[in-house]
Amino acid sequence: MTTRILHRLLKLIKTNKKFLIVSHISPESDAIGSSIALALGLKKMGKSVYVLNRDPVPDILKFLPSAKIVTRKIPSGKFDVMFIVDCPNMERTGLKNLRAKITVTIDHHLLLSQVIPKQSLNLIDPKASATGELVYKLLHSLHVTIDKAIATNLYTAILTDTGGFRYSNTTPESLKIASRLVAAGADPWEITKEVYENFSFNRLRLVSLCLPTIEKKGKITSITVTRDMFKKTKTSIEDTESIVDFPRQIKGSEVALLFREDRKNLYKISLRSKGKVNVAKIAKTFGGGGHANAAGCKLTGSLTEVKGKIFKAVKSAIKN
Amino acid sequence: MTTRILHRLLKLIKTNKKFLIVSHISPESDAIGSSIALALGLKKMGKSVYVLNRDPVPDILKFLPSAKIVTRKIPSGKFDVMFIVDCPNMERTGLKNLRAKITVTIDHHLLLSQVIPKQSLNLIDPKASATGELVYKLLHSLHVTIDKAIATNLYTAILTDTGGFRYSNTTPESLKIASRLVAAGADPWEITKEVYENFSFNRLRLVSLCLPTIEKKGKITSITVTRDMFKKTKTSIEDTESIVDFPRQIKGSEVALLFREDRKNLYKISLRSKGKVNVAKIAKTFGGGGHANAAGCKLTGSLTEVKGKIFKAVKSAIKN
Repeated sequence: MTTRILHRLLKLIKTNKKFLIVSHISPESDAIGSSIALALGLKKMGKSVYVLNRDPVPDILKFLPSAKIVTRKIPSGKFDVMFIVDCPNMERTGLKNLRAKITVTIDHHLLLSQVIPKQSLNLIDPKASATGELVYKLLHSLHVTIDKAIATNLYTAILTDTGGFRYSNTTPESLKIASRLVAAGADPWEITKEVYENFSFNRLRLVSLCLPTIEKKGKITSITVTRDMFKKTKTSIEDTESIVDFPRQIKGSEVALLFREDRKNLYKISLRSKGKVNVAKIAKTFGGGGHANAAGCKLTGSLTEVKGKIFKAVKSAIKN
Repeated sequence: MTTRILHRLLKLIKTNKKFLIVSHISPESDAIGSSIALALGLKKMGKSVYVLNRDPVPDILKFLPSAKIVTRKIPSGKFDVMFIVDCPNMERTGLKNLRAKITVTIDHHLLLSQVIPKQSLNLIDPKASATGELVYKLLHSLHVTIDKAIATNLYTAILTDTGGFRYSNTTPESLKIASRLVAAGADPWEITKEVYENFSFNRLRLVSLCLPTIEKKGKITSITVTRDMFKKTKTSIEDTESIVDFPRQIKGSEVALLFREDRKNLYKISLRSKGKVNVAKIAKTFGGGGHANAAGCKLTGSLTEVKGKIFKAVKSAIKN
């Protein structure tokens, strides 16, 4: 994050009054936590703030302080500044017809094609572990007192985007900010209970049904979830979150796959790499996308056909 | 940690030459990581160091830099100072006939009966998340440069004792030290892969077999592992590590139980509390022990009998 951009941004915030905060569709912790924390910080400065998302706050994030300020109702008025948070462009917000004099992106994702113009006000730092980290720095620079509510939102954002301080984006900086957020009132165990220890009994029954499908072929491991399993356990797509971690946690796994049956002959595939294989590249060849270590795509065909295609592509990527 | 004790300890280390480091039986990451890090630090100061444990370094910890310096061979000579690390007393080391002029305990466990004498050299701080935190502070005070090897050992110690920075012992201090250790070369993802993503395929098959045994009765959840499951999956007691996390992660669970069949009619029970119930007290009534949130005991009887007794005791503890 350049000091130059930060300074311009501080001035912009100080000299304006009406703010709109939006984020990406299907928002997760970093999108929601960063949006709320930024809103709470701006409100502390006496600003008028409107937080908008196309989709609802996921149930698992409703514990976040002030989660209710995130609304789905398109505002009619015009804003001074619109912040696009944890989201590289307007398209990914799924929103339109919003009016603001100035638009500013705060994000840690960098699109391959993206060039940050010199005069930009956008706070884009791919080195940040989470957008929450950037919002922390912004609020800190604005001399906003980080209270328990802001700290809880930002801690949750950073916690989840670093996979619980486990992924390779866990830096000295993210841990230092986490330390300050805990000092400011974020409670690691209370947040852990909400984020990682809040599975339904049915979700566990789903895990129980799909674990026997785990396969290991060389350095590739996989797990499969079928519509039949959803039906038997009264679960849905949402309950497959983190199920790909099971094959990933197997010793010797370099790439882990989740095959999720969405419709007859339509599979969503989640790909996870342990660092040596760029799975975004593989997903892209099938019309999908993602990060180097976490990507996804959809394929039509029988499970055998789909598995055959993906395993072949991953195998070839491991060899190269 | 009092500055007074720390000062005495620095003087003791500076004025002596031959050091022995021991820890508790069945050592885990904090015991091994703290022992090795302390040894490496003292060696950097030109000291002679001998690291001893009654039991071998667990396979999962053999990735720790300099893990090989931990030996099981009883030394014949006499030492200037013996450090008992991550262990409240000599008894828990399972060792005897060791000779040292002075014995110093470095630990974050506090026995209920324990009173720290005023003239003590023992570094006992129950507020520390892990003994690794105390060793970090000691080495830092000794102006030892924390290199990648020391940092990796200490980070692993703190990481595991805080349950991956999740438990309530995760403090601003533990995160701050973690931040410094990452800056000094500890690699969160590499360590995560060794500690949390290193399960055997057979261990996953074991999980797959025991998940269907999960039960939820009010705020109590449980899971059962039988000898038959071990046999079918070619696994052993070691593979049940963290299996109690599955029932604990269920929404609404206050106390999670693991019933492990060790012999016919002999069960080891692991009890985990999410914070409201002191499970150490329950374990104690059955001759076991542990911490408020993690305890264990052994009971004889059929599975139905054993489960009946434990569920009754936990139910009554939840009510009170």
